[in-house]
Amino acid sequence: MTVSLGEIAARYGCELHGDPDTGVTHVATLSAAGPGSITFLANKSYRPQLGDTQAAAVILSAEDVADCPVAALVSPNPYAVYARVATELHPLYDAGPGIDVRASIGAGCTIPDSCQIAAGAVLEDGVVLGERVGIGPNSVVGRDTSIGDDTRLMANVTIYHGVRIGQRCLVHSGVVIGADGFGIAREEQGWTKVPQVGGVDIADDVEIGANTTIDRGAIDDTVICAGVKLDNQIQIAHNVRVGAHTAMAALVGVSGSTTIGANCLIGGASIVAGHISICDHVMLAAGTGVANSITKPGAYGGWPANVDEIGRWRKNVIRYGQLDEMARRVRKLEKQLRDMSDDP
Amino acid sequence: MTVSLGEIAARYGCELHGDPDTGVTHVATLSAAGPGSITFLANKSYRPQLGDTQAAAVILSAEDVADCPVAALVSPNPYAVYARVATELHPLYDAGPGIDVRASIGAGCTIPDSCQIAAGAVLEDGVVLGERVGIGPNSVVGRDTSIGDDTRLMANVTIYHGVRIGQRCLVHSGVVIGADGFGIAREEQGWTKVPQVGGVDIADDVEIGANTTIDRGAIDDTVICAGVKLDNQIQIAHNVRVGAHTAMAALVGVSGSTTIGANCLIGGASIVAGHISICDHVMLAAGTGVANSITKPGAYGGWPANVDEIGRWRKNVIRYGQLDEMARRVRKLEKQLRDMSDDP
Amino acid sequence: MTVSLGEIAARYGCELHGDPDTGVTHVATLSAAGPGSITFLANKSYRPQLGDTQAAAVILSAEDVADCPVAALVSPNPYAVYARVATELHPLYDAGPGIDVRASIGAGCTIPDSCQIAAGAVLEDGVVLGERVGIGPNSVVGRDTSIGDDTRLMANVTIYHGVRIGQRCLVHSGVVIGADGFGIAREEQGWTKVPQVGGVDIADDVEIGANTTIDRGAIDDTVICAGVKLDNQIQIAHNVRVGAHTAMAALVGVSGSTTIGANCLIGGASIVAGHISICDHVMLAAGTGVANSITKPGAYGGWPANVDEIGRWRKNVIRYGQLDEMARRVRKLEKQLRDMSDDP
Repeated sequence: MTVSLGEIAARYGCELHGDPDTGVTHVATLSAAGPGSITFLANKSYRPQLGDTQAAAVILSAEDVADCPVAALVSPNPYAVYARVATELHPLYDAGPGIDVRASIGAGCTIPDSCQIAAGAVLEDGVVLGERVGIGPNSVVGRDTSIGDDTRLMANVTIYHGVRIGQRCLVHSGVVIGADGFGIAREEQGWTKVPQVGGVDIADDVEIGANTTIDRGAIDDTVICAGVKLDNQIQIAHNVRVGAHTAMAALVGVSGSTTIGANCLIGGASIVAGHISICDHVMLAAGTGVANSITKPGAYGGWPANVDEIGRWRKNVIRYGQLDEMARRVRKLEKQLRDMSDDP
Repeated sequence: MTVSLGEIAARYGCELHGDPDTGVTHVATLSAAGPGSITFLANKSYRPQLGDTQAAAVILSAEDVADCPVAALVSPNPYAVYARVATELHPLYDAGPGIDVRASIGAGCTIPDSCQIAAGAVLEDGVVLGERVGIGPNSVVGRDTSIGDDTRLMANVTIYHGVRIGQRCLVHSGVVIGADGFGIAREEQGWTKVPQVGGVDIADDVEIGANTTIDRGAIDDTVICAGVKLDNQIQIAHNVRVGAHTAMAALVGVSGSTTIGANCLIGGASIVAGHISICDHVMLAAGTGVANSITKPGAYGGWPANVDEIGRWRKNVIRYGQLDEMARRVRKLEKQLRDMSDDP
Repeated sequence: MTVSLGEIAARYGCELHGDPDTGVTHVATLSAAGPGSITFLANKSYRPQLGDTQAAAVILSAEDVADCPVAALVSPNPYAVYARVATELHPLYDAGPGIDVRASIGAGCTIPDSCQIAAGAVLEDGVVLGERVGIGPNSVVGRDTSIGDDTRLMANVTIYHGVRIGQRCLVHSGVVIGADGFGIAREEQGWTKVPQVGGVDIADDVEIGANTTIDRGAIDDTVICAGVKLDNQIQIAHNVRVGAHTAMAALVGVSGSTTIGANCLIGGASIVAGHISICDHVMLAAGTGVANSITKPGAYGGWPANVDEIGRWRKNVIRYGQLDEMARRVRKLEKQLRDMSDDP
C-alpha cells in the first residue's frame, strides 16, 4: 500500500514541508529508514539521528522541523500521527471469516458468519460472539461468555465462563480471564475454598498483554473500563476496578477489591495493596509499592510501602545511596560531642 | 437450589437469629444483596454497610449481631461458614463424564469412566488418572504423569512428564508444572544445560492459580505439600519444598532448593532466595525480599535483602520516607559542631 | 544406559581416583545416592554430605578429593562435567519423527520428515522448520515464522508470525514470543495503538523458561543473541537486545529499547528501565532496579532506582535495617547540641 504525504497531511491535520505527491509504503526507524519509508521523532534522545535520516518523510513537532533533511509532517502530537499512519500502512492480518474444521463449538453458541474461529479453538456452550470476532488457534472460551464486535483473541488465550468482553478489544496469547480469585477461609484443619461466583466485565477498546491474568470476582464482578491498556504479565485480582483509559506497564500486580481511577499511568512492576483506592490521574513510577489509598492526582513513587510525592521520593532514593556514609557521619558527630562533654 | 437458614445453622453450628424456614438461593455482597440472598461480614471495613443490607440473612460474629437488620447466623468464623454455604449454593459446574472426540489419548493411559476429558486435551502415553478427574480444553498432560481422584485441570494447563498430583486439587489455566528448572553450568564457550531429571510431587487439596509455574527438580523432586494454596503468577523453582497449608499471594518467587515451612502466609510479590529455609508459621508482608533463612515463627517484612521483625521493619519504612530530611539534619549538626569548635 | 568411569574421565578430562571399569547408570544427589549412581560436589554448602555418600562416584574438585569415600572424578569444573554426564545418562525423550493426525498444518509450510509435530499443534501458513524440530502438543506457530534445526517447543507454546528462532533452542510451555510490544500514543479521546511491525530474532542455543514473554519490535526487531538462557516468567519488551550468553533468573523485567550486554548475570526479579544500556559482564543481585545505564563491568545491586557497586549497596542495605535507630541518634544529637547552646 502506498499513501501520499498530501493525504497524510490532510487526514491528520499536519503541516507538510515537502512534495504532497511523495508516496510512502512502510514505516521505519530514523536510523534505518530508506526510500519509501516514513518515520517520526517524538523522543528527544533520538534527535541526533534526525540529520542523517534517509526516510522519505519524518513526522515531528514544529521545533524540530528546521533540522529535518527530508520532507516533514509537522504535528503537535507526532507519535499519535505516526500510530495512525502505521495502522494504515500495516493493517492487522485478517485470515478472513470462517470456522476451521478443527475448532470445537459447543451447543447454543451465537457465531455470526463474519467471525473467524481458528484451528483448535474451543467454544463451550452458550458462547455469544459479535460481528467479526476472531478466536485464535487453541484459544478456549468458557460457557456463556460474550465477546463484542471486532474483538480478537490471539492464540492460546483462555477465557473462563460467564465473562463479558466488549468491542474492539485485543487479547494476547497466554492471557487468562476469569480464573478464580484467591479466596480462602482459614479453618482449624486447613483452608476452605471460597467459591468465586462473580464474573469479569471488560469494556470496549481494551488491550491485554501476553500472559496477563484477570481474576473473576468473588461475588460481584471484576471490572476493566473502556480504553484500558494492560501490558504483559500483569495480575489483576478479584473485584478490582480499573478506570477508563488507565495504562499499566508490564508486571504490575493489583490486589483484591482495589479501585484504580481513570487516566492513571502505572509504572512497570508496581504493586498495589488490596481494599484501597487510587484516584484519577495518578502516575506511579516503575516499581512503586502502594499500601494506602491515594486521593490526590499527581506523580508518586516509593518503596517499600510508603509512597510519596515523586520529587520527595527521588530525594530519598538518592539519600538511600548515601546511607552508609550518613551513618558514619552520625557516628563521628556522636564522638565529637562525647569528646566535647568529656573535655569541658 | 434453596437452603434454609435452619439447615445452615445446624450444619455449621451457627446461632440463628431469625426464621429457620427462610430460604436462601444465592450469595451476595452486603451492599448489593436482595431478597433470597445470603451474605457475610468478616472484614471490619465493610461494617458500615451492615445496617442497610437487604439480604435475607447475614453470617457474622457475635459482636455484630445487635446491628444486623435482618436474619443473622452467628459464628466465630463467619468467613469459613460463608465459604461452605457458597459452595453448597454455587457448586462447581460439572460437564459430566466422557472423553471428547477431539481429545487425544496416548497409549497405555488409565482413564476411569468417571473422568471428563475435554476437547483438545492431550494425554501423552502412560498417564494415570484417578476417579472423576477433569482435564480442561486444550490442556496437556505429559508421559507417565499421575493425577489423583477429583482433581481438576482447567483449560490450557500444561503438566510435563513424570509429575504426581494428588486428590481434590484445582489447577487453573496457564499453569505449567514440571518444566525444567534453571540449571546451567558455565564453560568457556558458554552455558551447558544441566538436565533436570527430578519430578514434581503435589499432594492433596492443593490449588494453583493462573499462570503459576512449578519447575521439576534437578535430581530429586520439587514438593508441594497438602493443602497448599498458590495464587496467580507464582514461580516455584526446582527442588523447592512448600510445607502443608502454606498460602502464597500472587507474584511470589521462590528460588531453587529453598524450603518453606507449613502454615506460612507469603505476601504478594515477595521473593525468597535459594538454598535457604523458612520455618513454620512465618508471615511475610507483601513485597518482602528474603535473603537469609528465617528460623523463628513470626511476621516479617523488609526490602531489599534484610528482613526484619515486622514492627521494626515498619519503623524503618517510615524513616525511609524521611531520609532526605534526616540527611539535612545531619548536615546541620555537622555545621553547628564546626561552628562551635571554630569559635571556642 | 551404563557409562564407565574410565570413559567419563577420558571424555571430559578428569583425573580418576577409582576403578575405570565401574559403571554408572543414573545421577543422584550426594545424600540420596545409591549403587550405580554418580553425583557431584560444586557448592560448598553440600560438602558435609560428602563423607557419607553412597554414590558409585563423585565429580568434584581437587581440594575435595581427599575426603571422598568413593570413586572420584577430579575436574576444575565439576558442575559442567556433571551436566555433560547427566546429559549422556538422561537423554531428552524423543517421540520420533512424524506429524500427528490432530496437528493442523497451514499452506506452504516447510516441514522436513525428521520433525515431530504433536497432537493439537497448529502451524499457520508459510512456517519453515529445520531438521528434527519438535513442536509440542497444542503449541501454535504463526505465519512465516522460521525455526532452526533441533529446536524444540514444548507444549502450549505460542510463537506469533514473522519470528525467527535459531538452532538447538528449547522453549518451555506457556512461552509467548512475538506478541505486540506495549506501544500506545495518547490522544485526547484516549490511547491509540501503535502497530508493532517488527519481529523477534532469537539466535542459536537459547533456552526460554515457562511463561516467559518476548515482545516483537515496534519497527525493528527484538533480538536475543546466541546462548542466552532465560528462566521462567521473564518479560522482555519490544526492541530489547540481550547479548550472547547472558543468563537471567526468573521474574526479570526488561523495558523497551534497552540493550543488555553479553555474558551478564541478571538476578531474579530484577527490573531494568527502558532506553538504557547495560554493558557486557555485569552481574545484578536479585531484585535490583536499574534506572540508568551501566557502563562498567562489575557486580551491582540496589533498589529503588539507584544501583550501586555491590559492596557499597550491601552496606546501605545494612544501614537501612538500622534506620529507625539512626533517626533516634540524630534526634539525640540535636537535643544535646540544643542543651549545649542553651547552656553556654
